[in-house]
Amino acid sequence: MAINRRKFLKSGSALLPALLPFSGATASDQEQFTNSDEVVNFYLDGRTFEPGEYLTELQKASASTSIERDRYGVGGAIEQLEKKFTAITGKEKAIFMPSGTMANQLAISVLSGQNAKVIVQDTSHVYRDEADAAQTVFNKRLVPLAKGETFFSLEDLQGYIKNLGREEVFESGIGAVSIENPVRRADGRYVPLEEIKRISEYCRANRIRLHLDGARLFLASAWTGVSIKEYASYFDTVYISLYKYLGASAGAILCGEKSVIDQMPHLIKVHGGSMYGNWVNAAMALNRVEGMEQRLKDSIQRADKIFAELNKLPGILIKPLQGGTNIYSLKLGKEIDGKKFRETLSKDYQILMPRLMENNEMLITVNETLLYRQAEYIINAFRKGI
Amino acid sequence: MAINRRKFLKSGSALLPALLPFSGATASDQEQFTNSDEVVNFYLDGRTFEPGEYLTELQKASASTSIERDRYGVGGAIEQLEKKFTAITGKEKAIFMPSGTMANQLAISVLSGQNAKVIVQDTSHVYRDEADAAQTVFNKRLVPLAKGETFFSLEDLQGYIKNLGREEVFESGIGAVSIENPVRRADGRYVPLEEIKRISEYCRANRIRLHLDGARLFLASAWTGVSIKEYASYFDTVYISLYKYLGASAGAILCGEKSVIDQMPHLIKVHGGSMYGNWVNAAMALNRVEGMEQRLKDSIQRADKIFAELNKLPGILIKPLQGGTNIYSLKLGKEIDGKKFRETLSKDYQILMPRLMENNEMLITVNETLLYRQAEYIINAFRKGI
Amino acid sequence: MAINRRKFLKSGSALLPALLPFSGATASDQEQFTNSDEVVNFYLDGRTFEPGEYLTELQKASASTSIERDRYGVGGAIEQLEKKFTAITGKEKAIFMPSGTMANQLAISVLSGQNAKVIVQDTSHVYRDEADAAQTVFNKRLVPLAKGETFFSLEDLQGYIKNLGREEVFESGIGAVSIENPVRRADGRYVPLEEIKRISEYCRANRIRLHLDGARLFLASAWTGVSIKEYASYFDTVYISLYKYLGASAGAILCGEKSVIDQMPHLIKVHGGSMYGNWVNAAMALNRVEGMEQRLKDSIQRADKIFAELNKLPGILIKPLQGGTNIYSLKLGKEIDGKKFRETLSKDYQILMPRLMENNEMLITVNETLLYRQAEYIINAFRKGI
Amino acid sequence: MAINRRKFLKSGSALLPALLPFSGATASDQEQFTNSDEVVNFYLDGRTFEPGEYLTELQKASASTSIERDRYGVGGAIEQLEKKFTAITGKEKAIFMPSGTMANQLAISVLSGQNAKVIVQDTSHVYRDEADAAQTVFNKRLVPLAKGETFFSLEDLQGYIKNLGREEVFESGIGAVSIENPVRRADGRYVPLEEIKRISEYCRANRIRLHLDGARLFLASAWTGVSIKEYASYFDTVYISLYKYLGASAGAILCGEKSVIDQMPHLIKVHGGSMYGNWVNAAMALNRVEGMEQRLKDSIQRADKIFAELNKLPGILIKPLQGGTNIYSLKLGKEIDGKKFRETLSKDYQILMPRLMENNEMLITVNETLLYRQAEYIINAFRKGI
Repeated sequence: MAINRRKFLKSGSALLPALLPFSGATASDQEQFTNSDEVVNFYLDGRTFEPGEYLTELQKASASTSIERDRYGVGGAIEQLEKKFTAITGKEKAIFMPSGTMANQLAISVLSGQNAKVIVQDTSHVYRDEADAAQTVFNKRLVPLAKGETFFSLEDLQGYIKNLGREEVFESGIGAVSIENPVRRADGRYVPLEEIKRISEYCRANRIRLHLDGARLFLASAWTGVSIKEYASYFDTVYISLYKYLGASAGAILCGEKSVIDQMPHLIKVHGGSMYGNWVNAAMALNRVEGMEQRLKDSIQRADKIFAELNKLPGILIKPLQGGTNIYSLKLGKEIDGKKFRETLSKDYQILMPRLMENNEMLITVNETLLYRQAEYIINAFRKGI
Repeated sequence: MAINRRKFLKSGSALLPALLPFSGATASDQEQFTNSDEVVNFYLDGRTFEPGEYLTELQKASASTSIERDRYGVGGAIEQLEKKFTAITGKEKAIFMPSGTMANQLAISVLSGQNAKVIVQDTSHVYRDEADAAQTVFNKRLVPLAKGETFFSLEDLQGYIKNLGREEVFESGIGAVSIENPVRRADGRYVPLEEIKRISEYCRANRIRLHLDGARLFLASAWTGVSIKEYASYFDTVYISLYKYLGASAGAILCGEKSVIDQMPHLIKVHGGSMYGNWVNAAMALNRVEGMEQRLKDSIQRADKIFAELNKLPGILIKPLQGGTNIYSLKLGKEIDGKKFRETLSKDYQILMPRLMENNEMLITVNETLLYRQAEYIINAFRKGI
Repeated sequence: MAINRRKFLKSGSALLPALLPFSGATASDQEQFTNSDEVVNFYLDGRTFEPGEYLTELQKASASTSIERDRYGVGGAIEQLEKKFTAITGKEKAIFMPSGTMANQLAISVLSGQNAKVIVQDTSHVYRDEADAAQTVFNKRLVPLAKGETFFSLEDLQGYIKNLGREEVFESGIGAVSIENPVRRADGRYVPLEEIKRISEYCRANRIRLHLDGARLFLASAWTGVSIKEYASYFDTVYISLYKYLGASAGAILCGEKSVIDQMPHLIKVHGGSMYGNWVNAAMALNRVEGMEQRLKDSIQRADKIFAELNKLPGILIKPLQGGTNIYSLKLGKEIDGKKFRETLSKDYQILMPRLMENNEMLITVNETLLYRQAEYIINAFRKGI
Repeated sequence: MAINRRKFLKSGSALLPALLPFSGATASDQEQFTNSDEVVNFYLDGRTFEPGEYLTELQKASASTSIERDRYGVGGAIEQLEKKFTAITGKEKAIFMPSGTMANQLAISVLSGQNAKVIVQDTSHVYRDEADAAQTVFNKRLVPLAKGETFFSLEDLQGYIKNLGREEVFESGIGAVSIENPVRRADGRYVPLEEIKRISEYCRANRIRLHLDGARLFLASAWTGVSIKEYASYFDTVYISLYKYLGASAGAILCGEKSVIDQMPHLIKVHGGSMYGNWVNAAMALNRVEGMEQRLKDSIQRADKIFAELNKLPGILIKPLQGGTNIYSLKLGKEIDGKKFRETLSKDYQILMPRLMENNEMLITVNETLLYRQAEYIINAFRKGI
């Protein structure tokens, strides 16, 4: 996710309400729930695991298939995970990375070679949330297109490139284009497949390499119906997060062609990301990725059903965002006390809602915790809440 | 100047007509003139010297005061030049640099320290014409403000900084602000003194260091009447070009406080700019800077007089640019054959005009070569030309 | 540890026998043992945990004190761990790092500031086993002293610095001195305290910052009797590994003064090491560090007793290394079949021995698994083995 | 040359006597001579030109062939110079560089690509006299071989590479080998051709690129009889200085294959070395390179003759250095007052000698100024001097 969680967590206040569903529930809310398997949350991208649950979950996984450790990213659960993701993405090779920032930066760095310019969305994680790593550590110049928008069009890209000859005459070269999909800073909206296809075709024709920041690619896939493999096919490299909804405590996976991925171990090493063992993260992600696509599909179906019912209640209006994925708008009527509403859901029904925004609105996320309770239970909870 | 002269010169065509007055006269035009002391040009920032003239000029200078060579930038003409420019700018110390790009980049680099962000005009040389050196070699992220404009206001700067907390949460720090004045890509327009003062006050209050890309600062000074010393006083470092109008074959000078300039010899060395001798450039600049301010004043007076007369001629309209310095607009009436007009001035009067733009317009520059001929001679030439 | 485990593990052969005690036991040896609590190993720096054991161990820890997760290195077990290590080292502040390479490189980078030269042992991890990260990513020039030796003396250091003025005249500055202690590539030998004190005094007097690569500092401390706090007191920063003997699956901790450690979160972020959660590593290290010093003391006592008895056996000679810590030399008489000896110990007694070297010698390590069995049990096993 | 001239010149004292023949004559000595055409110096690599002479020399050159200026390194005298040096070295392409440091660093950087390690002589300019630019700016790790020696052998090189797998396991790759020839810090000694050939063959077979720091390559060529073209043929890139004996006030030329040299303009630009005009340096070097090889041959012949005569004088012993080029040892008998001897030669005969070393010895250089006087004149001067 694209914010300074350190700062956020320290300040205790919501810096970026719209962007921070996960922080919507206060710490005190969460402390009450010991058994997360019954807690429904409307503010995260997936189920997260507190330490005790995490260990239990891993031991359950361990019981069915023995978990083996990796050594410095070689073998064991890491190897299994990498194989799994080459299958999911259809790419030649995959490699575990400690963070999405490292995955994005190293992918971009290798794809662009000696060329300085890397074109990104203005709203992208690479541009806004990686602390200028591209410019200060990786010697790249990020060129943001589509200010404040979810995505740039092929025409935006072509326009920039065409104009470049007039605006700058010394050629430092266009190395790569990076696209985030879905876009967290655009409330999870996705980049239209058609645009991806056109940009991909153009880039391939012009020998510009293409990276996909697919941290939440499973979400895009579930909501648009485009397979992860198809998305991946339009890009040279694809990064997918292992913790945002796959439950690992940390980690990312980067997939691409062999010649690119084979350069990564050395680069991970020199940037200090070569860790002794990451099987704890890999095993959890492996465990959780199994069935993830189905669970997301089920969650959408369940949400559709629930939201249809909820929209019949007075003072409740839930709408998907235009071009959105798992984030929806929930507007409460003026007559409803939003604060009390949240409290009731939390205390009486173990349903956690995101932070209330100024106009009695919330941006709620749909995730698999929706499946932890019957639709009727949730509908009833809302009915009581209002 | 802000263009790829290599590309330009190779292509032989005008890439950026408005920006390229110096290239307006074709090579063949120039070859005719052996004695430049009688040639008036309306397309350069100053008098330039062909090799023969250059040597003669230096020998004349040598005759009055002996030229001494420097060794690796120490002593001789270089030392004299550095002293001269500390006097001109009022700064503690000055140092010769092989190029403006090195002067700008090293100044910005040292001023901003560990901080990544350096704020510049979108139209500035640092942003557009230094081949992404800041991002690829000096680990800085340039942040362009005021797209397509001559300058950004204090409010633009404050707005960006204020907004930053919302747009990016990881703090990579604002290191420096760089202002080009006058702005070549804005046809030589100057940054209003009032804005400079406000920005300077704000930056000093907020511990943001301030660099002046004053490549053509003498022009700004001559046209606005603000002394170079006053301009310099608002900045931590100031770079002035030695070849654009001071006649050296290459070079730049960077002035600032001792603690900053003292870091430069090592940085120049590691970036490969430590040259055995540059007395040939220093001596020429020293020679030419003497009286430069007066010559520019005289040129402006002469231009005012000449242009007033020329504006009385049918089909000729010369106007200063709004907020401009030494570049003026010359519009020819439709009835005048612009191409023929240029040829006549060139062949019959040794008056060289810039390239004709689409609408029978030229952007002409005023420089000291205007003083090489009587006003009447020039006025008469134009009269015959149309 | 200082080798390319990827390569090693792939090749399956022993690249660096003397350096690789941990790899001494073949995979097949290990597979036999399901209950590690009864396995004694003579080839590792400590107890390691297979996934199942790891989870069990953490759940036990969790039962006594609730484990809380961190978010991006803030709060929870990470915070506890950082506090614990400020207490252990006596430094102002501590920070978790994903790897020892990142800890070393960032410490060196920050300590040396703009200065290029960082002086290290030729045999150190920083010099030999960090893939030239210092030169290629962190803009430092490592200067190795004491070729092939455990440590350099103050005189070596002074000699280098004094000579520098003659050997190089352009000053790129000495930024920091880094000392590894104990030195893995010197078979775990320690740097004499007296030398550390002299170097520290000299460096402080000459404003040269000092970093301690104390990956295995607990071992040095246990064998020399010098407290970790005392060692740390002579350095500006200290790194200690969390996985080599503290059982975490990965991670390192860096301690130092607040002004240095406060620069780390940004640097970790831009180098891609900012991970969502590392509580799994922190909680394990916290759990295992408790009592570690005592366990090491007990292990040494136990080893002394056992080795004294073993040395009475015919054909067995165990000797501590000169200036060594936890690595000892075990020489078998020619009449003993070393290979068979290892097999007997492994199969019949669950005692794992390191790889046999050419001259029927092994470099055995003493660690806390020695405490898992009675001295008599081990002595008896050796007796049967020979 | 390989020293901090800034520091040297400021201190006024001789830091590195053996390395500094050029500084041997004090400033006051030199001031006496207005007409350098009659001054013989025994302490420089060639004739240098004071500003007045420089201009005169260029004007003479200009009279015979018109000098044309370059613009940003394109066209004119620069183009002529580049063509001249492609002919001299037999390489595909040549490019002017502002300094030898930039030529060396950029060549090494491009040749080694992503690989970190660049092997150099311990005594080389690249290693000792470029202020750690390789490590701090160009992300390379210099590996010095042959401590204190003139050159390393093929066996040294192979030994290092072979050993590398044992000493370091993470592979950061060997990118290039750079050889300085002749070696200034080895009193101008040359690298044996046979060794160059063997190393070249090995490097080509192993895809290791090879750079020649031939700053003084004309000297090696003149003394060994190996043509510059032959030397160059063993290397991928060759740098030759333009000021050490070719008389330019600054500059260097780098020659190599097109694909390498074509990358240079962009790199020169981003490192700040793209200067408006360098025709003043190019024209001088062009002028002086004409006939240089013959003049050096004549100088050697003349020196042989003179030294043979001088060695007959009592108290004078002149010997070439073992494996040396233009530097010779001159030993004065104890009975001779060395200081007075130097003064006599300087004042009475305009013969400038280098600095006197401790044991009444001097390291004298042979250069073309030897041709300015009859052999008898010089011999007679020495006779009077002793």
